[in-house]
Amino acid sequence: MTTEQAPSSTTAQPPPSGISRRRLLGSAGAAGAAGLVAGGAAGAYASEAAREAPAPLSSLGATAVPFHGRRQAGITTPLQAHGHLLAFDLAPGANRKAAAALLRRWSRTAKELMAGEAPPDDTGIALDAGPSSLTVTFGFGRTFFGKAGVGDQLPEALAPLPDFVSDALDPKRSNGDLWIQIAANDALVAFHALRALQRDAADTARPRWQMNGFNRSPGATARPMTTRNLMGQIDGTNNPKPSDDDFERRIFVPERVEPAWMAGGSYAVVRRVRMLLDSWDHLSPERQEKVVGRRKSDGAPLSGGTESTPVQLDKVDENGALAIAGAAHVRVAAPASNQGAAMLRRPFSYHDGFRDDGAPDAGLLFIAWQADPMKGFVPVQRKLDLGDDLSRFLRHEASALFAVPPGCAPGEYVGQALLEG
Amino acid sequence: MTTEQAPSSTTAQPPPSGISRRRLLGSAGAAGAAGLVAGGAAGAYASEAAREAPAPLSSLGATAVPFHGRRQAGITTPLQAHGHLLAFDLAPGANRKAAAALLRRWSRTAKELMAGEAPPDDTGIALDAGPSSLTVTFGFGRTFFGKAGVGDQLPEALAPLPDFVSDALDPKRSNGDLWIQIAANDALVAFHALRALQRDAADTARPRWQMNGFNRSPGATARPMTTRNLMGQIDGTNNPKPSDDDFERRIFVPERVEPAWMAGGSYAVVRRVRMLLDSWDHLSPERQEKVVGRRKSDGAPLSGGTESTPVQLDKVDENGALAIAGAAHVRVAAPASNQGAAMLRRPFSYHDGFRDDGAPDAGLLFIAWQADPMKGFVPVQRKLDLGDDLSRFLRHEASALFAVPPGCAPGEYVGQALLEG
Ligand code: HEM
Ligand code: HEM
Repeated sequence: MTTEQAPSSTTAQPPPSGISRRRLLGSAGAAGAAGLVAGGAAGAYASEAAREAPAPLSSLGATAVPFHGRRQAGITTPLQAHGHLLAFDLAPGANRKAAAALLRRWSRTAKELMAGEAPPDDTGIALDAGPSSLTVTFGFGRTFFGKAGVGDQLPEALAPLPDFVSDALDPKRSNGDLWIQIAANDALVAFHALRALQRDAADTARPRWQMNGFNRSPGATARPMTTRNLMGQIDGTNNPKPSDDDFERRIFVPERVEPAWMAGGSYAVVRRVRMLLDSWDHLSPERQEKVVGRRKSDGAPLSGGTESTPVQLDKVDENGALAIAGAAHVRVAAPASNQGAAMLRRPFSYHDGFRDDGAPDAGLLFIAWQADPMKGFVPVQRKLDLGDDLSRFLRHEASALFAVPPGCAPGEYVGQALLEG
Repeated sequence: MTTEQAPSSTTAQPPPSGISRRRLLGSAGAAGAAGLVAGGAAGAYASEAAREAPAPLSSLGATAVPFHGRRQAGITTPLQAHGHLLAFDLAPGANRKAAAALLRRWSRTAKELMAGEAPPDDTGIALDAGPSSLTVTFGFGRTFFGKAGVGDQLPEALAPLPDFVSDALDPKRSNGDLWIQIAANDALVAFHALRALQRDAADTARPRWQMNGFNRSPGATARPMTTRNLMGQIDGTNNPKPSDDDFERRIFVPERVEPAWMAGGSYAVVRRVRMLLDSWDHLSPERQEKVVGRRKSDGAPLSGGTESTPVQLDKVDENGALAIAGAAHVRVAAPASNQGAAMLRRPFSYHDGFRDDGAPDAGLLFIAWQADPMKGFVPVQRKLDLGDDLSRFLRHEASALFAVPPGCAPGEYVGQALLEG
């Protein structure tokens, strides 16, 4: 890794909104200018349209996230409004060389699209649009290594996740040799990337499963920090923060940990968690808040304060009862209840209509990032599995674990140290 | 109908972007202020959050579309980024009175949500968010009338659509007694509305089918007028324009036409049209442009000019060949080729992952609005069915036709003239 990259959460800052495209193009060096220039390259069309009817290209469209860097994008990048999760299996006979060529193709396409450029023979679906904070993130599943002839590089951390009591997993929508997380603030930009990356897979890898998710649109709310999920809760409050002292070593694999090609990478646990929304919505708001341990309205912990006030797990009310109940989700999941186990949750909501039984097929595409799943997702989910009030309203329907290598420098591709190491 | 409503396309104008929530709240009377005040009423939370960390609530969130008016919203309203189509069947035994009570509940909920207010016992999913251009549009299917005891009010225009050669319709996802179109520029605002309206249905109506769609996010592109579809084409260019002399009588039912309760309403044809994207993407861009008759890049007709230049169907090139091919989609579909038949196309794209055969389950939720389907969708689709080059890349998988009554005045509900007439 030779390039330094500031955390994406700062590099992805959009230019101040309401500034016209023309003005931005004339203000090189501003935070968003790089993004915008890249955005403008999406095709001659954008400029042509602008000439016909000059219109503001807003920060939503103009913002670009850099592809190259120490980390892959899409881990600490601010949540985007649209997400696609794709898993692939290597085609029979695809060897290390074929896999390396695929990762090279994928990296090139990701780089171009994230800069707002169109690859050759483009479908045109994203023409006119800026990069819209597109990120593309690549990962390897446990089954990849043997098939691709790099079995000696299989990380211990990719050991299969243990079974959980409440699992009701669909194997067809679980696991996979390769994983791509696509996210953007425009649905057509995200779909465009999905089609381009699928085409790149060609004969080397075949789609295994795919899931679509969403988050709030930028600008829909005055609350910029955290999103809501489909249970109506503010979600993400007590995530580790990039400013925390131990953020790096909790979320990203330290240098000294084997295998070497994963240094600076992260492990992604992906769980499709259906919400039993009909039962949930029948609870009173007060009951709902007890189940989680935070107020629904503003996310403040039931131990008092505002959303950002630290949770006081030992606080008791005037009757001597715990302010945050014994089985409340935030208590059972907290690092303090799990020997410090922590992960960065960066989910998307999903909603695929209704099921045959009439219930909504909706919930959370839960994605947890950590340096080591055994010190992140696994112990916490074990604990939740046994005694979390929220679990009664959840069904884990699919599961996967991926090794997400570090980012790459210009001229390199993601996974190169594994595939050519 | 006692209220006058300017076309939604003008009432839904957002306030200039980049203006902070605070400033807008202090500028009552501005175009967006009503929307914003309503948005602020979504809960005390938004204001609380603003106090903690004042942040701009952008025009995306702040924009409100009025519920009351001559027309229902969601027909001439600018396309939103997220859409849900829901069909319901009346529960056995639900009579006219029950249906009237349902439409009254639905209208009240739609009105509140479109103003950014939360109904009682709210799920909280849209808390903090402004109305985000939410629209809710209600329609009646042919099968509604007999069941609800208003068979004498069945419009002739609701006669079943004829079979088309290329139909491959799934009856379970077609038709329905009642229809709701929900659309908003925020996914959680749209989902919130869906849950609230489904709850209102209670024991009176049961979900029949549901489809989710999307369009480009506002601000993703500098091209403000038209969206792109998943074939990469600019879509919507030659739609009838509200400024056209004959717009009203083509799209909305004139006073003198029976039944009286539909005066000012419109008929919505809904078709789920899957795109054979793998075959389509194999065509060269030049072939793709010939199939449609317009350039992909900028939407200009192959007869010359820019996107807004009128199509010249009789133009021949230097070799004497038609500039716009004989079977080009825009030729076959044009009013000039169909005795003036015209409709307002206001679609959403959809993408539900991939099918068992590996092909993308993606395409267009085609929605066409017209005063009379026999002078709009039906003759045009008949013609397309026989000789449209584009049809080879399309599969019509579901179909429905709904009578969408006019809007209602304050104190009234949508469909009141039918159900209490
Ligand atoms: C659909 C499933 C889930 C929902 C709706 C949900 C919801 C929430 C909510 C509302 C909070 C409080 C706000 C916050 O700090 O973000 C929270 C906190 C948390 N959740 Fe979940 N959660 C789900 C699944 C999980 C799973 C599967 C895990 C890990 C195995 C997990 C781990 C955590 C952790 C570590 C916290 C922070 C606790 C703290 O330190 O205060 N959650 N979750
Ligand atoms: C997935 C299906 C379809 C796609 C991708 C599609 C695409 C397009 C495109 C790209 C245009 C040119 C730009 C414009 O004027 O909007 C167009 C025009 C048009 N389409 Fe379609 N279309 C589809 C289905 C239909 C259907 C089912 C109908 C009606 C039965 C229809 C009726 C029309 C009409 C009336 C025009 C305008 C023609 C003119 O006056 O120039 N389309 N369509």
